[in-house]
Order: sequence, then structure tokens, then C-alpha cells
Amino acid sequence: MIRLHNDYNRGACAKILEKLAETNAESYDGYGEDTWCEKAADLIRKKCNAPEAAVHFFPGATQANFIVHAAALSPIQSVICPDSGHVYAHEAGSIENTGHKLVPLPSADGTITAEQICKAVKSYYEAGEPNYLCEPKMVYISFPTEWGTLYSEQDLKDIRKVCDEYGMYLFVDGARLGYGLGSVKNDVTLEKLAELTDVFYIGGTKCGALFGEALVITNAGLARKFRTYMKQNGAVLAKGWLLGLQFCALLEDDTYEKMTAQADAYAMEIKAAFKEKGIPEFVDSYTNQQFVIVTDEQAEQLAKEYTFEQERTLEDGRKVVRFCTSWATTEAEKDQLIGDIRAL
Amino acid sequence: MIRLHNDYNRGACAKILEKLAETNAESYDGYGEDTWCEKAADLIRKKCNAPEAAVHFFPGATQANFIVHAAALSPIQSVICPDSGHVYAHEAGSIENTGHKLVPLPSADGTITAEQICKAVKSYYEAGEPNYLCEPKMVYISFPTEWGTLYSEQDLKDIRKVCDEYGMYLFVDGARLGYGLGSVKNDVTLEKLAELTDVFYIGGTKCGALFGEALVITNAGLARKFRTYMKQNGAVLAKGWLLGLQFCALLEDDTYEKMTAQADAYAMEIKAAFKEKGIPEFVDSYTNQQFVIVTDEQAEQLAKEYTFEQERTLEDGRKVVRFCTSWATTEAEKDQLIGDIRAL
Amino acid sequence: MIRLHNDYNRGACAKILEKLAETNAESYDGYGEDTWCEKAADLIRKKCNAPEAAVHFFPGATQANFIVHAAALSPIQSVICPDSGHVYAHEAGSIENTGHKLVPLPSADGTITAEQICKAVKSYYEAGEPNYLCEPKMVYISFPTEWGTLYSEQDLKDIRKVCDEYGMYLFVDGARLGYGLGSVKNDVTLEKLAELTDVFYIGGTKCGALFGEALVITNAGLARKFRTYMKQNGAVLAKGWLLGLQFCALLEDDTYEKMTAQADAYAMEIKAAFKEKGIPEFVDSYTNQQFVIVTDEQAEQLAKEYTFEQERTLEDGRKVVRFCTSWATTEAEKDQLIGDIRAL
Amino acid sequence: MIRLHNDYNRGACAKILEKLAETNAESYDGYGEDTWCEKAADLIRKKCNAPEAAVHFFPGATQANFIVHAAALSPIQSVICPDSGHVYAHEAGSIENTGHKLVPLPSADGTITAEQICKAVKSYYEAGEPNYLCEPKMVYISFPTEWGTLYSEQDLKDIRKVCDEYGMYLFVDGARLGYGLGSVKNDVTLEKLAELTDVFYIGGTKCGALFGEALVITNAGLARKFRTYMKQNGAVLAKGWLLGLQFCALLEDDTYEKMTAQADAYAMEIKAAFKEKGIPEFVDSYTNQQFVIVTDEQAEQLAKEYTFEQERTLEDGRKVVRFCTSWATTEAEKDQLIGDIRAL
Repeated sequence: MIRLHNDYNRGACAKILEKLAETNAESYDGYGEDTWCEKAADLIRKKCNAPEAAVHFFPGATQANFIVHAAALSPIQSVICPDSGHVYAHEAGSIENTGHKLVPLPSADGTITAEQICKAVKSYYEAGEPNYLCEPKMVYISFPTEWGTLYSEQDLKDIRKVCDEYGMYLFVDGARLGYGLGSVKNDVTLEKLAELTDVFYIGGTKCGALFGEALVITNAGLARKFRTYMKQNGAVLAKGWLLGLQFCALLEDDTYEKMTAQADAYAMEIKAAFKEKGIPEFVDSYTNQQFVIVTDEQAEQLAKEYTFEQERTLEDGRKVVRFCTSWATTEAEKDQLIGDIRAL
Repeated sequence: MIRLHNDYNRGACAKILEKLAETNAESYDGYGEDTWCEKAADLIRKKCNAPEAAVHFFPGATQANFIVHAAALSPIQSVICPDSGHVYAHEAGSIENTGHKLVPLPSADGTITAEQICKAVKSYYEAGEPNYLCEPKMVYISFPTEWGTLYSEQDLKDIRKVCDEYGMYLFVDGARLGYGLGSVKNDVTLEKLAELTDVFYIGGTKCGALFGEALVITNAGLARKFRTYMKQNGAVLAKGWLLGLQFCALLEDDTYEKMTAQADAYAMEIKAAFKEKGIPEFVDSYTNQQFVIVTDEQAEQLAKEYTFEQERTLEDGRKVVRFCTSWATTEAEKDQLIGDIRAL
Repeated sequence: MIRLHNDYNRGACAKILEKLAETNAESYDGYGEDTWCEKAADLIRKKCNAPEAAVHFFPGATQANFIVHAAALSPIQSVICPDSGHVYAHEAGSIENTGHKLVPLPSADGTITAEQICKAVKSYYEAGEPNYLCEPKMVYISFPTEWGTLYSEQDLKDIRKVCDEYGMYLFVDGARLGYGLGSVKNDVTLEKLAELTDVFYIGGTKCGALFGEALVITNAGLARKFRTYMKQNGAVLAKGWLLGLQFCALLEDDTYEKMTAQADAYAMEIKAAFKEKGIPEFVDSYTNQQFVIVTDEQAEQLAKEYTFEQERTLEDGRKVVRFCTSWATTEAEKDQLIGDIRAL
Repeated sequence: MIRLHNDYNRGACAKILEKLAETNAESYDGYGEDTWCEKAADLIRKKCNAPEAAVHFFPGATQANFIVHAAALSPIQSVICPDSGHVYAHEAGSIENTGHKLVPLPSADGTITAEQICKAVKSYYEAGEPNYLCEPKMVYISFPTEWGTLYSEQDLKDIRKVCDEYGMYLFVDGARLGYGLGSVKNDVTLEKLAELTDVFYIGGTKCGALFGEALVITNAGLARKFRTYMKQNGAVLAKGWLLGLQFCALLEDDTYEKMTAQADAYAMEIKAAFKEKGIPEFVDSYTNQQFVIVTDEQAEQLAKEYTFEQERTLEDGRKVVRFCTSWATTEAEKDQLIGDIRAL
């Protein structure tokens, strides 16, 4: 069985396992105050061309998401996001649990536009003061989105402009950031993300690490006492060097970028195979997640050799399914799938 | 430099690293729905003689602590704990952040008594209804405590009785559980803990794992939808098998028990050495943490070769310091320290 | 200027002022433990034919709304409501501030159907366990709705059935309850509300009281320690008898029912006048709030003598406006408006 | 029976009832946007010599207390207070329910000193960064305290100095402010309070109003969008003018100051009577609350004609009881009590 149902079903890239073994007997300072975290943070600041950025390492993405909200917002402030946003749809009300309202904007492909955001914010300011609505204070988007789609540099600039106009933070969930950066259609860089957002993260868990996400905060106001927010919410790992070490392994020789770009490239071949076969796409994704519409028969046939995720059932009974390559997908696995698509 | 300032400054026991390497290329179901977690949970249920217990794996102890509170308590309910309790004194207000009041009871050595608890609870019930105080609904204690001390089986039975009388949960923070179980003075077992508490955890991070704690819930009411609380608070690791696998490695051949008992034994030798030397103890601990009172000169001398943690300064200027053995402490390290204590 | 922009712009019905004056020198027990509150609660239990119901008096409706949520729900539980629901749209994120997610269902006229609710709930249960969505645990509706519309007894029975099937509470916001009960189209009674809901309130502030709402809890589970939740959130008035006294005054001789029925009757005459004039309704309301679509010219003309609330601007530039009768609206005021509508 | 168990067992001073009756048929703008609130706020700003202060009217004191905390603090920030502070001891965990830790300092008479506060704060800053303790950000004290005692102007200046040094807000709970201002021992004025605090309130409920407290915010940073916090927590009364009107009635001709000063004067006579009789005081209070230590026999005798509150039982079996005069206490009531004390 070839497992393509998600991008987190295998351990970590070899370099990480090696580094763990090498350093296992070393003694380090706890809670991320170690040399690996320091080195990884420096590396990230350099790649982002953001020498002043605060960098923090999280065990997982849900933590990164809700702790940024908890630290950034006062009780009366809300967040604008796509209705497909991970924080709105998949994390068991984690943001509301911190006391904040999410304002979901309709999105067919996982992205929202500067214009949509602007309209939503305006309705708040038009209500005047005293205002009995929540103050929109942050925009949350994912790059790439939950549907595998991307924002262009221009899209981000437009959203940034709205955020500046209305005093809002821009937060980019980068749980799959590598697959966004590696896409053939992408024109965004780490430098641009650092420049255009207030805070974003570089996803490790889905991009070759055992676990871990690297949060980059470029807005100094947001960075204040951030580690205390992390501790309060259980996101400061006692053996913090495990995270720093992994990000060093991933980022040192562009391993991260190379692994995710390869997964994207394989996904493009799979995308083409579906297209050739006349199997329609549900969204036009150029990253490692491919969403296609299959008949029950096709799904059954593919399920013999591959795991994939079923997203929803269309009114005509066909299924939207996701095939997901990852840093761990091999050329042989990809080739076999393409062969089997052609043979459907 | 021999590092004895805490028990989480080195990686993991060899078996864990081996298992990680062996399984790195395997594909597993996400979010703890894998075979390793299942196997580890079964092992724990067996060791606890609690076939119906719910077992959940957490990346870290702060998460375990606050999520138990979040799941167990309604907004008007409070928790009784020692004033030295980790949740009260060291976790950045994580419990209050979930909306709950902690009622700290004075404790000289980290423990509290059934009598103290009973008195605190009674004052609530004597206020009658409608009652404008918080309803005490849980007792939180640590085993061993933050000062290395222990509760006897009888202590726990007495506390259990008060909890039963007033309808309260008993929650035992077992971040260092192994060092408690391995103590020469201990008469508590995993079975007894499962029987006498509603929920407790078996600490991994400080006891030989890379990271991770295993929560055991024996009160079925508390177990309801517990995974959703974990997800909401970011404690469901995407690659959950990393936790199950570690607990399998630790618990399969009693590796956990053996490693921590050895650390305790080394600590007893160090305790004896301090005693012989006439260096007074701050508390009478029989686990891996030894708290002694040293002069500036002694501290300076020991600091040349050893790291240790300074806890507080006494009024006469002497220092309370902690020497902490761990699963990773070697016989040679222990012997060297004993020699240097004698030479003070 | 005749003020019809809302139903809370004047003091209280004469009986209340008299009772306040009569009792001003009396001494009472504090925090609602007085004879007036007891008497009012008994009166309400009798009118509701709910001898076991818990009755609590709140200074205001926002408090009643969010405290019911705080007391009823655990952190992972959510609430289903119309997207026009007061708690979703007008109360500054008060529910999210208690940590709970609201699941808004689309509603054109302020009501939602059992079928809509059922569909929303099903999607949760179809996700299986462990479930990383919020558990739907309550349905919040308003009677009458924010658009002046009503649920029939059959509508409520259908919703109750869904609630029973999925273990959900049914909470009815009755801030304008009197105007619902008094409507010519209404077939719901206090008895029926008590029977079909778990908790609802009888609005005072908008229905002739100076301030205050009477919450009726028929679900014993929900009633547990409810006063403590109220105290925690600042809803226990020190001089609680002020609330009990008002509800006695309102409910003793059916003053409440009579006053609101009259306001409804006036509204029906105004509704008819708009209809005759060919001024379209925005929703077909049979209670004291009338929403009509006027041109700028008509709005300007009416604004000379009347205050009314502008709700929104339609795409063609016409305005949706609300004319609101109340317990304080006089026959002369109503007649003058009708004359002026005819003269438009 | 003469009721001296608290200062909120009777309605309101005559002027308030008159004003309510006079204005009952008037129509006003809702939610505190009316002329009475405006007038009352101006009056308060003038009395405080704080022309820029924000003034908000609350239905009750618990609301004022917790909403100030909610608006002032981020999730990692804590509050220093006396262990007898109302927010710590009597409000059902309302502050913790907003997510904030209270740091109680021991207090025998209800007051805390600048020195105590300074010491508590220092321990936080000595921990360095990253800091896993809560950041102390506010000092909460009551004037007069729950034990009827007072802070002198110098006390407040000293506390202010510590607050300035460590960037903390100073919040004064003035639920009984009038009785503090009217005390023979008092040297604090409204002007001084406005100058030395960031936020405080002028209690109405216990000082002659039907209900209501007037919050004065002199720190502009704290005032931002304050009404939205109030709305979110249900503290914006629909008929807000009821509060403005009461404060106009109380403050216009110094009615407030005169009424509370008289209650204080009566209390001084009662204090003297107890002293003459040899009945010891529990605290040396110069305001309307008098706490004395009585035998069972004395308590029984007094209970025949008077209501008073029992606070606690001493180890020797004697009782600490409170006799509380108020704006509504008459000369005859006071004289009768003095006679009966002498006759004990």
C-alpha cells in the first residue's frame, strides 16, 4: 500500500535522525535556551533577511496558531479568515477557546482577497463608536491553503495594504510552507513573507521533521514576552534543542527547500496524469496536495494500492479526494500511481 | 562539567533512539491512532491493572496539567493544591488562563495532608447556597513533589477519602513518577495510583524519553471526549506514534522502572555523602532530587565541576541548592561527586 | 418627535414606579434572597405550569445570554444559532469571550428550521471519534426573532425533537417575549415554552420594566449552582428585590401580557397602513417591530416627526427601516403615524 | 428589627426616587448615550478635576471589578491584591474566570503596603527573561477596605510610586467610596484619587443609589474601546440613563458626601459606645463598618433588636461581628443601638 493520504505519515528525513543520534548523549540547557535553537534561529533570520525577527520553535501547528491569537489579541478583537481556514474548520474551536471571534469569509479555493477583507473591516468601522462589534485586528491565511492553492506576492501586498490601513496583523499559517515555496507557480520567498507579514511560521511536521514549527515574528510589538505565552499554553518543550536541531538539519543545506520542491514536482506529474485521463480537478492546485473528482468505481480501483483522503461527496455522488505527496514520497511510488491512473 | 542541575538535559535512553531509527520509514496513521500508541496504552493499562482506563499521550507536562483542568472543571470550580505545586508556581498562570482558581495550601516539603484539604473544602460547604465562592472540585498533587518528597499509600488513601466525601477529583502530576516509584521509601505502585486517583500521568520527559507524558484516566466521566480537549489545546501530535513508540520502549522490559530506580539509588549515596560531611538537607528527600544547604564557599567549590540549581537564599546567606540525578547519570559521575563532597 | 426607533427608550409602566416608591424605605435581604423575588418566581412558575423550574432575575439580556452559555457548555461545545441571532451579531463577541464557538445558520427572516439544525449536527456526528470539531450542545433562538418573526408551536416541537435526538439544550432568548406572546399569529404560551425548552427568559427591559429579565430553567441539570455562575459574571444585583418587585408588578394582573398585546395591535395597524400605501415590507412581522422598505424621500418625510432605526441600504438605494411600537406607545402616537403614512 | 447587617438593604435616597418619577415618561437614547449620563460624567470629571477622564456607569460592582481586569490585562498578566480583597475572596472566581492570576498579599486589616507590593513585584523581575511567571501589571485595593480601614494620601502616593516604577496600573475599588471620603480620619479626596490611580469607581449601590457604580478612568490607554468590553460582558444597561440620573441626583448638591459622612459619624458614636463598654474592636475602623468581638451572650442579646453580620469565630469561641451604618440609618436607630450597647 502506498500512503498518499497525508504528508505526515512517516518519520523524518535521514539527516534529522542522524543528528538526534549524534547528540543524544550531549547535555543542553532546557526550554529552548540551547545552542541548537540559537543556531536555527540565526539561520532562519538570515534566510528571511530579518535580522531583528524573533524566532520560536513549537512542537505543533495548532499550538502555534492559537498562541499567536492569544498573544496578539485583546478580548474584544476578532480575526478575519477564509471559511476553509484550519483555525476555523479543523481545530476544535481552539481560537474561540482563547476567547476570540473568527470572522469567516467565503472562499471556494482556500484563498481570500484584499477586497473581501476590506469590505468586512469597513462594516466594523462604519458602525462608529461606541462599537458593539468585535474589532477586527488580525487576518489569518494559510500558505499554501488547505486546498493547496497559493497567494501571489501581489496578493499578499494587497492584503498587507488593507492590514496597514486598518491597523491589523497579518498572520500566515505555514504548516505546509515548503510545498508553497517549492511550487512552479510560486513567486513568494521567505524574505517576502518576513517583509509582508507580522508573523508566520515555517512548518516542519509536514515537511520532513519529526515534529515542530518555526514561528517568525517580525512585528516587535507582537514579540513582547512571547515565550511566556508559549509556556502558559504548554508550548515550551523541556528539551527544546530537539526542535532547534531539526530546523538546523532541515535548513542548513536547503534540504527543506529541495525535499518539498521535489514533492511538488511529483504532484505536478500526478496532476498531469489525472488531467490526461480526463479526471477533473476540484481546485487548480500547484502544490503537493491534489484534489480530484472521481467516481465510486475509480475510487475503489485506486484504493486497492493507495491511501488517499476523501474530502466530500458531490451532489451527483462523485467524490472529491486528495492525493498528497510529501518529502518522503519516492519516485517509484509516484510512477506507480501515474501508471495506475492511466490504466483506470 | 557534570550536569546535575536537572533531569532533562540529555536526549533519551538508547532503546528509544533505536526504535526511532528502525521505524523511520514506516507509515502510520496520524494523531495517535496508530499501532504504537495502542500497544503502549495496553501496556500501561496492564501495568496499572486498569483495563478500562483511557490512556492519552502528551508532548509535554504543562499541557497535561492544564488540559486536565480544562476538561474536568466548570467555570465556577476550583482546585486545591500545595503552594509549591507546579501548576501554581511555575507555569505562567496556565490554570488561571483556563479560567479556574487555584486554592494553594501551605506546604513546607511539597506535600499536603487530607486534613488540610478537608478544612479548606469545609469552609466552602459551610457558606451554604447560594454560594459565591468557587466550588472545590479537584485536588492536584505531585508524586514525587517538587521537593522530591513522597506520599505514602496511606496518605493517598486519606486524601482519596476526602475527595470521595466531597465529590472531588484527585489528579496526580507524575512528571517524575519513575523517581517516586523507584525510591527506597516508596510503597505506592502504578496499580495503587490507578486505583486511588481519577487521573495521573507517567512522566517520560524527565525519565528517559525524548519527550512525552502518558496520561491515565480511570474516572470514565473525566474521559469523555478527552481527545477533543487535547486537540483544542494543541496537544494532539500529528505523528502521535512518536509518543506511543517511546512509551513502548520505556515500559516493555521495565526499562523505565530500572533507570529511575538507579538514579534514586545514586541520589541516596549522594544524600549520605552530604550527611556525613555535615552539610544539612533542606528537605528529607528519598528521590532523585537532593536539596541541601551550602555556604557560598561550598557552592563555589562544587560549581567548578558540577552544574546544580540554586533554589533560594536563606536569611543567614546560605544557599539552598538542588543536585539532581537522572536516568542518564553515570556511576562515574556519581562517584566523582561523592568524592568531591568528601573533599569539601 | 414621536420615538419609535426602539422599545426601550422610556422608563417603566406606572405600577412599577409606584411599587418602587412604596417599598423604598423597606429593608430586604440582599442578592435576590428577598420576598419579592420569591413571590415573582412563584408567579412565573405558576404561569409556566412549571412548579420545579428555577427562576433567576438578571439586570440585562446580554448577561442572561452569555451566562447561560457559560453555565451550560464545556470548552469543546458549540451553539447553533441563526446568523441574525443577537448573540452572534450584536453582543461584541460575548459568547466567544466565554470560550465557545457559535455555528451560525443562514436565515432570511430570523428563524431557523429543525431541518437546518439537524443537518448541521449530523455533520458533526458523521466525523466520528476522536472528533476534532466542536460538539454542538445547544440551540439558541429568539422569540420573537430580531426581525420580529415567530416560531409556531409546531416549529418549536420540531426543534425540540432534534435537540432530544442529539442531546442538545434549547435556549430561547425572550428579550421581547411579551410581543411574541401578544401577536395575533402566535400559538405559543408560557406553558409551552417551559415545556419545550430547557431554558428561556421573559424579557422585562423592552416590555415595560425599568430593567430586568426573568430566566426560567426547566432542565434541572442546567440549574445546578446557577447563582454562582451569575455572581461570577456580575449578574447578581445587590438589591435584587428591585427585579423581583418589577416582575411582580408586571405579571400580577397580566399587565405584561396586556401592554405588549396592545403594542402588537398598534403595530398591526401600522403594518396595514404601510401595506395600503404600497410600501413593501422587508419581512412579514406580526409583532411590535415592523421592517419596511422606503425611498430616501419617504424616509426623509417620516423622519420629520418620528424616530426609527435604519437597518440597511438595499442595492437599489432604498432603505430598510424599523418602526417599533412598545408598551409605552400611545394610541395618539399610533394614529398620528398612520395618518402620516397615508399622507406620504 | 433595626437592620445594620449591611449597607444595601434599603432602596435609594429620596431624590433618586423623585427623579425617576419625574423622568419616567421621557424618551432617551439607549446604552448610556443620553443626556443624564453626559451630565453625570461632567459632574464627576469636575469633582475629580480630571477633565479628560473617561466615565462609565455600571449596574454593579462585580461587573466593574472584573471588566477592568479584562480590559487592562493580557493573558499572561497578574494582579496584586490584599488577601481580603473582594475580587479574591468574595466574587466566585470572577477574575480567574477572565483568565488572570491574582497574587494575594497577607493583610490583617484589609490594607497592603507599598513595601509589600514592591517585594512581590521584585521577585518577578529577578527571575529574568524568558520568564515563566505571570507579569504583575495591576494593583487592586479597596477604599475603604473590606474591613472598613483607609489608605492615607501618603499610602497611596507610595503605592503609586511602586506602580510607576514597575509599569503597573493602580485600581481602586470604591464600592463604599463615600464612607471613606466622609471619615474623620480621611485625607484623600476625589481629586487625589483621580490623580494617583489609573482607574477607580465611585460606589452608588451601597451609598444611596438604587444601584450603580461610576467608573473613572484617567489612564487614556486603559480607556480605549472600554464600552466594547462593557458590552461584551453585559454591563451596558439598555436604559443607561437610569444610572446617569442617579449619579446626578447623588452628586449635584453633595448629597452623596453628606449622606455617607453622616453614616460615618453615626458609626463613630457606635464605635465609642463599644469602646466604653469594653467590647474590643477587631479592627480599628473609622468608617461605616464597625467590627467588634462579642461573646455569645452579647451577640444573642443584640440579635433581639438588630441584624448584624457574623464574620468569623475566634479560637476562644467569641465572635467577630459587623455593625454597618448606611446612608439610610436614622438618628433614632443609632441612638437605640448605643443605648442597648450600654445596657449589655
